[in-house]
Amino acid sequence: MTMAFIPEITSLHTAAQAELAARLRHKIDTKTKPLGALGQLETVALRLGLVQNTLSPALRDPRVYVFAGDHGIAHEGVSAYPQDVSWQMVMNFLAGGAAVNALARAVGMSVRVVDAGVNHDFANAPGLIHAKVAPGTANSAEQPAMTAAQCDAALAQGRALMHQAAEDGCNVVAFGEMGIANTSAASLLLHKLAGVPLDVAVGRGTGVDDAGLARKREVLARAAARTGALTDGVEALREYGGFEIAMMAGAMLGAAERRMVVLVDGFIASSALLAARHIAPAVLDYCVFAHRSAEAGHAAMLQAVGGEPLLALDLRLGEGTGAVLAWPLVKAAAAFLNEMASFESAGVAGKEG
Amino acid sequence: MTMAFIPEITSLHTAAQAELAARLRHKIDTKTKPLGALGQLETVALRLGLVQNTLSPALRDPRVYVFAGDHGIAHEGVSAYPQDVSWQMVMNFLAGGAAVNALARAVGMSVRVVDAGVNHDFANAPGLIHAKVAPGTANSAEQPAMTAAQCDAALAQGRALMHQAAEDGCNVVAFGEMGIANTSAASLLLHKLAGVPLDVAVGRGTGVDDAGLARKREVLARAAARTGALTDGVEALREYGGFEIAMMAGAMLGAAERRMVVLVDGFIASSALLAARHIAPAVLDYCVFAHRSAEAGHAAMLQAVGGEPLLALDLRLGEGTGAVLAWPLVKAAAAFLNEMASFESAGVAGKEG
Repeated sequence: MTMAFIPEITSLHTAAQAELAARLRHKIDTKTKPLGALGQLETVALRLGLVQNTLSPALRDPRVYVFAGDHGIAHEGVSAYPQDVSWQMVMNFLAGGAAVNALARAVGMSVRVVDAGVNHDFANAPGLIHAKVAPGTANSAEQPAMTAAQCDAALAQGRALMHQAAEDGCNVVAFGEMGIANTSAASLLLHKLAGVPLDVAVGRGTGVDDAGLARKREVLARAAARTGALTDGVEALREYGGFEIAMMAGAMLGAAERRMVVLVDGFIASSALLAARHIAPAVLDYCVFAHRSAEAGHAAMLQAVGGEPLLALDLRLGEGTGAVLAWPLVKAAAAFLNEMASFESAGVAGKEG
Repeated sequence: MTMAFIPEITSLHTAAQAELAARLRHKIDTKTKPLGALGQLETVALRLGLVQNTLSPALRDPRVYVFAGDHGIAHEGVSAYPQDVSWQMVMNFLAGGAAVNALARAVGMSVRVVDAGVNHDFANAPGLIHAKVAPGTANSAEQPAMTAAQCDAALAQGRALMHQAAEDGCNVVAFGEMGIANTSAASLLLHKLAGVPLDVAVGRGTGVDDAGLARKREVLARAAARTGALTDGVEALREYGGFEIAMMAGAMLGAAERRMVVLVDGFIASSALLAARHIAPAVLDYCVFAHRSAEAGHAAMLQAVGGEPLLALDLRLGEGTGAVLAWPLVKAAAAFLNEMASFESAGVAGKEG
């Protein structure tokens, strides 16, 4: 593995953390409710405490970063939409008219858009972060999607964004993406890094028809045949990733370095995490899995990273929409942990017998 | 059926509504996203439009009402907690220390607590609504839980609360409950009104152990044997309900009369809805199902009312906690319907071919 930086992520599976986990469990279990009655919210509350190394986690300045990039493999006809939709959707994000904008406003998150590698020159705009590695990747059906230097740059830029966010006081972040053909990149990462067969890993993305799906399978089989099995996250990103996926992987690593809570969105975001955990497994300790996407391969992807998502709403949009919808649940988990009375403090009788 | 009022609920399954539904579908489908990509949020958005008879639903003053009541059947030892916990938890709600308080604050709902029939005299307190029918029901293992007059009073009071809420400008409401032994009442309603066998309908509630569960089954079998099958919602409430359940059923009917959106919580709230829809089936048209509870019988209950819940977080707490957690999703559904750009307005290309 060659990489411009070695992530320094504190593992949350240590003896000291086990002691904190026991104290968190006790705090949760003495709240005025039957044992375990808040289900997955309790699991999230425990994680928040471990991530922040405290019994009273505080979540600040929740943000969603939408990384956008174009893909050379789009020219093989693997998507239902033309490549221009990538930059047009970036304009839509900046104008506040996309799903992620409406949802983020509804739940109180702010949106930032990152041009990681879109095939378009954007003027400056509020909310837009210029971080273009190149105007789209190469066609991974024929050659590596990016050079080693490009992959490094994408990872380093994503990491730097999170270090800046931490400096700003943000400690909880969701990641979304936009990039025509990026389900193809995510499927290839899943296939190569987790050994999931292509016919399980490949789905309809934004909605290709049966003929389109057959073509996508054929193109991805050709791409997959270029290399053997891969176990190196950086190499996998270089061969099959996208600039938005590599930058998101770097951002996940950087967020974990700064002990931020990472809300993991759907299929594409999970593929970035899959690569990130092949670089530094401890990144998983900082993740809350937001939702199970309707995209065919997402269940296998979640299994590969050991994620138990909070939501299953049949979303298949990306942009970070699933992660944004999970934010109120995460906020609620912190709220119950910090604000609920205990049986003793509230003067409520415990279980009989 | 005897009842103090006949609910006047507009069915949303009419020709005029079908025309509106088609227009809503078109509005949803021209948003800048692949067809159907927002999954269950799209279903909710459609429902919001139909409930409010508009293409642009607006949700105002979201509230959760927590109905509390005591149960004579608690004296049979069917719960893991002593009956005093009912009034102690009411005090906890009023002090803001219960789960529903913390969660409601996190998601921006206000909480009201209704004494529908708790075995305790409460002083006046902000947020407390005095609506006590009696200090607890009779023991339904031996006799009808309440008189016809009591059942009528509970239904009418619940309805009146919602008419007042509508006058206040509230148009979206969640219902929660507190009442030691009320899973027993809910299980009996499920068994009698939906024909679900008792062994499916009865679960551990707040967490009885194996011996407790065996006892609960024995007591409920004895209670069930008192009557034949029931198809009348009011009669079922009278025989086996609780004051909090009957008042909630009345509130659901009243909310539907005023075209409010009803967020349906878990096992107990669903049993109130089951009774309500046996009184007026159109009440279902106004409901959004919040979550699938971990309580054993809830899946069968949801099937009985045809509900597809948004969340499945292994909650088994009641208080309206699941409904409160679903509120941000409902808010997000309205937001995308109202705020997202269309392909045309955003200048984004549509699907190819």
